[in-house]
Amino acid sequence: MQTIAIAGVGLIGGSFGLAARKAGFSGTILGVSSPRTIEKAIARGAIDCGTTLRDAAGAADMLFLAQPISVILETLRDLKTEAIVTDAGSTKAAICNAAKSLSRFVGGHPMAGKEISGVEAAEAGLFCGRPWVFTSEPPAELRELVASFGARILVMKAEDHDRMVAWSSHLPQLVSTALAGAVHRHAPDAVAVAGPGLRDMTRLASSPWDIWRDIIATNHDNVYAALDAYIARLESLREGLDAEFERASCFNRELRERQ
Amino acid sequence: MQTIAIAGVGLIGGSFGLAARKAGFSGTILGVSSPRTIEKAIARGAIDCGTTLRDAAGAADMLFLAQPISVILETLRDLKTEAIVTDAGSTKAAICNAAKSLSRFVGGHPMAGKEISGVEAAEAGLFCGRPWVFTSEPPAELRELVASFGARILVMKAEDHDRMVAWSSHLPQLVSTALAGAVHRHAPDAVAVAGPGLRDMTRLASSPWDIWRDIIATNHDNVYAALDAYIARLESLREGLDAEFERASCFNRELRERQ
Repeated sequence: MQTIAIAGVGLIGGSFGLAARKAGFSGTILGVSSPRTIEKAIARGAIDCGTTLRDAAGAADMLFLAQPISVILETLRDLKTEAIVTDAGSTKAAICNAAKSLSRFVGGHPMAGKEISGVEAAEAGLFCGRPWVFTSEPPAELRELVASFGARILVMKAEDHDRMVAWSSHLPQLVSTALAGAVHRHAPDAVAVAGPGLRDMTRLASSPWDIWRDIIATNHDNVYAALDAYIARLESLREGLDAEFERASCFNRELRERQ
Repeated sequence: MQTIAIAGVGLIGGSFGLAARKAGFSGTILGVSSPRTIEKAIARGAIDCGTTLRDAAGAADMLFLAQPISVILETLRDLKTEAIVTDAGSTKAAICNAAKSLSRFVGGHPMAGKEISGVEAAEAGLFCGRPWVFTSEPPAELRELVASFGARILVMKAEDHDRMVAWSSHLPQLVSTALAGAVHRHAPDAVAVAGPGLRDMTRLASSPWDIWRDIIATNHDNVYAALDAYIARLESLREGLDAEFERASCFNRELRERQ
């Protein structure tokens, strides 16, 4: 493999380039991003030079799409290439569907991230020890490269991936967002007595909307099925606790009546 | 102040004793707990010796109740003492109500904790920088002692405290418990693709039921008001996102139809 091209040289794309270099890849790494990002990515050593998507598609043996989901979908719309193509989108079914016309595409999802984005935050070790999902068995070169990053490779159907991440990632995001919104709306003064619990539970709420709008737009049915089941669970938890709490508050009422 | 008594020498009670010593308290520190706990607490230097509640109530200038809420309520039922009495219960209205007959009681809530409990986990610095709520202006000796721990003293009505912690602490607990339960029930396989988000969002779910059964039993109305408002928020968030997502998924459908 002589040439890798990375479209979208941000946190994930930049880390891919740094990880490939650290793993000993000695070929050329091309980047497709804004001129300002290309400049920073070259300075970081994540890529060798910038190019257009068209030229990258022609020159690369492997093309890694690390853009936002909606941009990946746009990119795939007109993409023609003989290269191995994979991506880093957080949902897979819509992207795999959009990539049908490509002969050597395998959907991917490196399950690694950070709260800060951009190539400035990229690091060679970002994928180490983290799961990296492929939607079908990847070509040997791709599997070897990703394995050399220290990632744990998982192969599963795009539909299975999307159902699972709706529960493990997208629902927790909505739960956190709603909790932050509810406290802000109903008890802003409660921040004075807030501890690490509330801080942990609302950390996700600071995730940028523009990223997960795309995520949830492309995983709508799974996310709302999970949200419905969660709301039902809260309702039943409430009933379940009621019974238990009723006994306990009888005990407390009794105690206080005895004062 | 010559003698402090601590009822319930666990994480909070033990840390109170260690913090008092570190702050230079040179009088006697009595402990009221099980023989095994007393032994460990003396070994840790958190107390000087064990005694009964009755003897502690007679001998102490200040009595600190650091037991579970239901045990504090029981203790207060029969307590007769001239000492300054305060407590560490996580809810305040029920306890303050149960303490009406005591002339020198002020409700307290040191908002500090750890995931491990017991005097083994106690530390002199546990309260440093953390809020410590009192339900009325504490006597000078108590205020000075707690201030010497480095705690941030807040004075508020018991009812205001209970309303605020329902939002800042008790609701996040239920939200986390329900999330863990829902994922376990509906998508146990999603753990394979879980990241730090789900881990953070379910960390509270490991809290021991016996502690927060008491908490929620004594803050029932506030907790369920918060839970209802949160469920309503999830419902409206869902509707709110629907509109936004509908636009985005039209965009995606359009893209995919163009393949």
